Amino acid sequence: MGMTIAEKMLAAHSGYDQVVPGQLIECDIDWVLCHEITTPAALKMLEDRGMARVFNPDRIVAVPDHSVPAMNIKAAKMYQTLKEWVHKNGIKHWFDVGRGGIAHVVLENTGLMKPGQTLVSGDSHTCNAGALGAFATGVGSTDLAGAIYAGKVWFKVPETMLIRVTGQANPGVTPKDIVLEVIKRIGADGANYMVMEWVGDYIDQLDMEGRFTLTNMAIEAGGKTGIVAVDDTTRRFMSERGVSPGEYTEYQSDPDAGYKVVVEVDASQVEPTIAYPHIPSNGKVAGSDPIKVTHAYVGSCTNGRISDLRDVARIMKGRKVADGVQMIVVPATQAIWKQAAQEGLLEIFVDAGASVSYPSCGACLGMHSGVLGPDDVCISSSNRNFVGRMGDPSAQIYLASPATVAASAVAGHLADPRDYDAEGNRVNAAD
Amino acid sequence: MGMTIAEKMLAAHSGYDQVVPGQLIECDIDWVLCHEITTPAALKMLEDRGMARVFNPDRIVAVPDHSVPAMNIKAAKMYQTLKEWVHKNGIKHWFDVGRGGIAHVVLENTGLMKPGQTLVSGDSHTCNAGALGAFATGVGSTDLAGAIYAGKVWFKVPETMLIRVTGQANPGVTPKDIVLEVIKRIGADGANYMVMEWVGDYIDQLDMEGRFTLTNMAIEAGGKTGIVAVDDTTRRFMSERGVSPGEYTEYQSDPDAGYKVVVEVDASQVEPTIAYPHIPSNGKVAGSDPIKVTHAYVGSCTNGRISDLRDVARIMKGRKVADGVQMIVVPATQAIWKQAAQEGLLEIFVDAGASVSYPSCGACLGMHSGVLGPDDVCISSSNRNFVGRMGDPSAQIYLASPATVAASAVAGHLADPRDYDAEGNRVNAAD
Repeated sequence: MGMTIAEKMLAAHSGYDQVVPGQLIECDIDWVLCHEITTPAALKMLEDRGMARVFNPDRIVAVPDHSVPAMNIKAAKMYQTLKEWVHKNGIKHWFDVGRGGIAHVVLENTGLMKPGQTLVSGDSHTCNAGALGAFATGVGSTDLAGAIYAGKVWFKVPETMLIRVTGQANPGVTPKDIVLEVIKRIGADGANYMVMEWVGDYIDQLDMEGRFTLTNMAIEAGGKTGIVAVDDTTRRFMSERGVSPGEYTEYQSDPDAGYKVVVEVDASQVEPTIAYPHIPSNGKVAGSDPIKVTHAYVGSCTNGRISDLRDVARIMKGRKVADGVQMIVVPATQAIWKQAAQEGLLEIFVDAGASVSYPSCGACLGMHSGVLGPDDVCISSSNRNFVGRMGDPSAQIYLASPATVAASAVAGHLADPRDYDAEGNRVNAAD
Repeated sequence: MGMTIAEKMLAAHSGYDQVVPGQLIECDIDWVLCHEITTPAALKMLEDRGMARVFNPDRIVAVPDHSVPAMNIKAAKMYQTLKEWVHKNGIKHWFDVGRGGIAHVVLENTGLMKPGQTLVSGDSHTCNAGALGAFATGVGSTDLAGAIYAGKVWFKVPETMLIRVTGQANPGVTPKDIVLEVIKRIGADGANYMVMEWVGDYIDQLDMEGRFTLTNMAIEAGGKTGIVAVDDTTRRFMSERGVSPGEYTEYQSDPDAGYKVVVEVDASQVEPTIAYPHIPSNGKVAGSDPIKVTHAYVGSCTNGRISDLRDVARIMKGRKVADGVQMIVVPATQAIWKQAAQEGLLEIFVDAGASVSYPSCGACLGMHSGVLGPDDVCISSSNRNFVGRMGDPSAQIYLASPATVAASAVAGHLADPRDYDAEGNRVNAAD
């Protein structure tokens, strides 16, 4: 029987010609991504066992992103721990505060992580990098410690779910809506320990930013990771980052590869989707309920990229954030921040009455820069709306695309991005 | 005997023709400035006594600034308390998150606070507004409660210290250096409960931004407030904000006014000054010691204005923040943020590897967005370097002008802004 792209990558990294789902393998790890929240615990484990070393200082990428610039002394200490370890061990790829941003988005743009490679990090959205045609997954601090020490991790080879997205999405429907629709259909545990492999002509036509949004959300369906196979779009993306096709391995699933599940999605039937509290699978059509919001958040490793900011600016331009709403816009990296500044997007947000933050995970996980209070209601472009995720347990979080967040911020309540056309003109005066 | 400008304003606001230092007066308050940190305590006091009212909803300016966007649930609740009170009482001048910034700097630019008026706020840097030729002072939450309830506060009429600054400052010497020099000379308690009245041809030639920096720091010498009398510069500033001279009262000190102390400063003799830990009076000449820094902070109500950001950009342009240094730049208000974006300053900072934050008091008082950890060393354009002010008690804080912060951020250690000329060229290659 043939193998899926994920199986091929895992086989190649564990010395087997063939692996099958359920098989336990010792997998070589090409890259370890470290941030300041989960890495210190892994380092402590290694230190306590007299195993304080790194397998390869050139293969570790360290990016403080969750709690920087520090919001309290404890956060400052965690940053210091990471920084000291980086310097002591000569970690080559260090993106200090002000030079990086959200780790996943920093990494995807470095050209370091290449198609066909493996990546682990002590962060659940590590699956983000799967859009490069790579195998990338989040691990706990114990596995992270193992990866730092040995460059290896034990995996059970996952089953693969094939998600075929065909057709043309209607205006106002973004990759975020597609993935929220898929999670709605399969459930927040619908892809438990599976690889979510995205194929179909919708995917073929999708740019890398949109693909990252899809693979990033794999964990929200319980997935081990998300993957999009390499194509010309991937090759161009890598080449723009100075990496030519000869420098990496491209894997494609075999025609007779075994899939555990196949999900078919007609993109033309998907509507702008809002995941209602308190689970990402709780999707409803945007515009169904004009529920008042107190906060609007654009950012995160899921939707803090330049195309997301452009989509928000299209709607915000010349408009104001509604009274009573705090809007926070967080470009995912310094490079995206600068690009958005050059394009005049940040001025549009500030003019509208939004706060533009330094790059950070910040409010997405209720750490700082926009933590929700009791009964606050937030429309967010981020990835999780669990109870207490962004602050107080009584706060309500609605997940949506950046465009839906922008439309809602202007309206002051959950709204439909289809109220605006591609030029940002209001097309639906019913509101 | 004649009166000082402060005495004249206090007399006019308490129904007397003449007041003398030491006299207790009941003073009418024109404006009450409220932020989310000290106001909730005042409101609780009033509520507990069945006195929950505001003397005049049109005369209260409410600006959340310390802990917004919220860095934790407690901060979110304090913001909610302020917001609910504002809406319940119809407070007219409300600058929500994303629409305001640091309260003192927001207020100075509104045109609301006029020369000759009185202002209190539950914040020690309320003295900032004295640069408008007004009487502005910080009060505790009890007095703040009284002001909110009755529009009146009891004051003991303060003595006045006259600070006469003459001559031309040399390149690289800014108002921040002048005020650090004065505090060095008179001590951090040198102006205890005194008005610091600034006069002299240096002051006459100084723009409003520089004057605000001077009056803002009055409290760092123990002063009740700082004041600069109205002149054409003030009138032009007010007129640019839509306020004509007929709408306010100008006070000047009488030639025979009684001053407790007179301090004479020759601006041409002042050098760029850094206040060493742990007190603002501990000034030394910039460049004396190349002490390594881990953090460089530009912001605060003292030095987060557009001229400050321009001065930083002049030095940062085309240069990088030194390895190992976190630089954080915080425009004081949304308007300043936008102006700095339009002038391309923010791009310069981000290019250099600095984090640009939303407007906030943030790191200045160790609340969020750059809190210092153990043994961190920060060069800061803010106003206080007390033990623990910006985070961990073992952190070292050095206060300086924005230019000195920029020069130090590039060097990676305390540095001298005179290493750069007015165009930002490096003129001293010794480093």
